[in-house]
Amino acid sequence: MPKILKQKSIFKSKLFDIKQADIEFNGITMKYEIISGTGSGAVMVVPFIENDIIFIKEYAAAIDDYMITFPKGKIDKGETIEEAANRELQEEVGYKSKEIKLIKKLYLAPGYIDHMTYVMVAKELSVSSLRGDEPEELEVIRVHRDDVINFLDKNEIIDSRVHAALNIIENHE
Amino acid sequence: MPKILKQKSIFKSKLFDIKQADIEFNGITMKYEIISGTGSGAVMVVPFIENDIIFIKEYAAAIDDYMITFPKGKIDKGETIEEAANRELQEEVGYKSKEIKLIKKLYLAPGYIDHMTYVMVAKELSVSSLRGDEPEELEVIRVHRDDVINFLDKNEIIDSRVHAALNIIENHE
Repeated sequence: MPKILKQKSIFKSKLFDIKQADIEFNGITMKYEIISGTGSGAVMVVPFIENDIIFIKEYAAAIDDYMITFPKGKIDKGETIEEAANRELQEEVGYKSKEIKLIKKLYLAPGYIDHMTYVMVAKELSVSSLRGDEPEELEVIRVHRDDVINFLDKNEIIDSRVHAALNIIENHE
Repeated sequence: MPKILKQKSIFKSKLFDIKQADIEFNGITMKYEIISGTGSGAVMVVPFIENDIIFIKEYAAAIDDYMITFPKGKIDKGETIEEAANRELQEEVGYKSKEIKLIKKLYLAPGYIDHMTYVMVAKELSVSSLRGDEPEELEVIRVHRDDVINFLDKNEIIDSRVHAALNIIENHE
């Protein structure tokens, strides 16, 4: 196992903490830059209504364009992942779930970012809204399970975690 | 479409450029923090030998543990994505490919990071090695296509782009 010789924060903002680390592998020392989140990770919720899956279309600031994604957001202090998932679901698509469960912890790109996303599946939905911090109403798109491949092919910009979540779900449901 | 009112870099390092942006949505202005990469993105290569898929096990600095991933790396200046993919393949697993093609551009988490990964499939492999900058030899793991789900279930830490790449490939091969 490599050994972290030293690690220090070189930048901190509201969302990110950039660290520099010296890591030793059998006598060779390498320098790394690492992005740490400042919170407890995020949830991403895949909502099912019978055989339909609910997607959202949301503005993605880093690429200044709209992306296809699932309801998701940071876990607030003191929240369980189930509570965070049910809150995001109500804020972003206007449903709550009576059957919400963790499918897998997703490590975004662990070589350089420690961001963790908890992929949840939500079923048994009923109409319920909460006011979130979204600056505009999100477009909610309901797609039959059999049409998902076509739907994703027709959209150029898709959050990579949508593909990852679908891969995990397809292999476990 | 939202409008970027102003954007400025608040931190720059070798790998990252953190930006702060004011973005306006119908009269509401929101503050965003965005991570930009400093290069041209990365390639991730899914190598096939007949019905086997080649994975690697690699140290992941951001979580100080080993992860399952595919050969991948930054695109060097002046390289095409095919050249970058074939170089990484030779550096990380000791093969070169005569049939390497782009399957999809993957947007990692476009809400806050502009990182782009080009997912490539490599077939028609032959033995060929290049010396890379890896600090230790990578473990190369060859898995039959039918056993991939089991293999991934048995491993706790998996680069999310592995799941994303497999989802895209399964739907297009």
